[in-house]
Amino acid sequence: MLHENVLEAEPAPEGKKDIAPRSGPGRPEGKNNNVRETMLDAAEVTFSELGYAGTTLREVAQRASVTQALVSYYFGSKYGLFEQVFLRRGRVISDARMENLNTLKSRGGMIKVADIVRAFLTPTLALRATPEGRAFSRLQARLHTEPPEISYKLRNEAYDVSTKAYVDAFSTALPHLPKKDIYWRVTLMVGAYLYAFSDTHRLDQLAGGICDANDPEEILTQATAFLVGGLAAPAAG
Amino acid sequence: MLHENVLEAEPAPEGKKDIAPRSGPGRPEGKNNNVRETMLDAAEVTFSELGYAGTTLREVAQRASVTQALVSYYFGSKYGLFEQVFLRRGRVISDARMENLNTLKSRGGMIKVADIVRAFLTPTLALRATPEGRAFSRLQARLHTEPPEISYKLRNEAYDVSTKAYVDAFSTALPHLPKKDIYWRVTLMVGAYLYAFSDTHRLDQLAGGICDANDPEEILTQATAFLVGGLAAPAAG
Repeated sequence: MLHENVLEAEPAPEGKKDIAPRSGPGRPEGKNNNVRETMLDAAEVTFSELGYAGTTLREVAQRASVTQALVSYYFGSKYGLFEQVFLRRGRVISDARMENLNTLKSRGGMIKVADIVRAFLTPTLALRATPEGRAFSRLQARLHTEPPEISYKLRNEAYDVSTKAYVDAFSTALPHLPKKDIYWRVTLMVGAYLYAFSDTHRLDQLAGGICDANDPEEILTQATAFLVGGLAAPAAG
Repeated sequence: MLHENVLEAEPAPEGKKDIAPRSGPGRPEGKNNNVRETMLDAAEVTFSELGYAGTTLREVAQRASVTQALVSYYFGSKYGLFEQVFLRRGRVISDARMENLNTLKSRGGMIKVADIVRAFLTPTLALRATPEGRAFSRLQARLHTEPPEISYKLRNEAYDVSTKAYVDAFSTALPHLPKKDIYWRVTLMVGAYLYAFSDTHRLDQLAGGICDANDPEEILTQATAFLVGGLAAPAAG
């Protein structure tokens, strides 16, 4: 059973959660009463809609119904806020991927490429179950088009260890391929899933009802078939 | 010989180009002396850096060294400007893809999947040859994370006809696959190439010198091997 419950994981509070949010009218009744989480949720949606450059702390504060000073107090700067938004889920996804891979390895014997692909995909696929998760998917899909100084450090911090572990797992499962091809294919795999998981409308619009881009089972089955074919293809050289 | 010279195509002037740009200090000496093109070039870079929400007409005007009133006169609104930026290259890419596909068809006989993939990829790969083209690649890779009202109409207008022609070509070349699988795979192909062509740093950083993400020949060879494997894989069902 693969670890899919990314959204249920709760980051540890950091000792600042006793500050009360503004309780004026318009304070949204969320499931999450932790003010830090409320601000992160608001920031996640705002960054996903407006991009990094288009987002202001003021906008985030308004959406979270707190003062801008409180956002600054918790996160310092816009970059600090973005960092926490990204790492909150990025680390959970990365940890779930590692856990899935370790589960496969613990079985012993040769691991099938399809199992590695599913272990990689399922933690992000689980994000599609909630509006917040879908907002994060869009934010993440857009990360690679944000300026390098915004994206590289965070992406590396969240994903380097787990993505390199997957590179090694694919190398072991596909011993006929040069490492060069493995790196290219893992990069192409990331692009394919980021797009297919965050932009279901393109498929709906193209296929006009033939595909159901909101059915998690269909997404996983179709993406896995394609990615296994691509990863296991003959060497490019 | 596939049509790759996307950047050399010049959109037809629209009868407004006699208005002179501001000739004050700081006016950049571009190769392109057409003021409309200068504004579109400036907007392309600005949108690619700041996203749709983060871009202002004022910023574009400053970068183009023209007045904001002139930008408004030519393009009406921010959306009008974005539309022209996107369609300027999007249509050229789409036309080049159609031309490439027609060339393959005119040879007669069965067309190989690898040839269709290359015909699809080469017009966008050519964009990587210039800074403006790379800015457009980023802008395009990010388009699907922009709000639907910004992205859908433009994307459909630029790409629907050609992408559907490729869906049909893949269907003919892969008669064992249900149409559903073809649609999914074309969508996954688009995601893979948008990411791999616009974000070379992720690969460089992961692979640490083993891959050269700036070598067009390597990109095309690696992407084609992966995509052909994915497209021609056994049916997902």
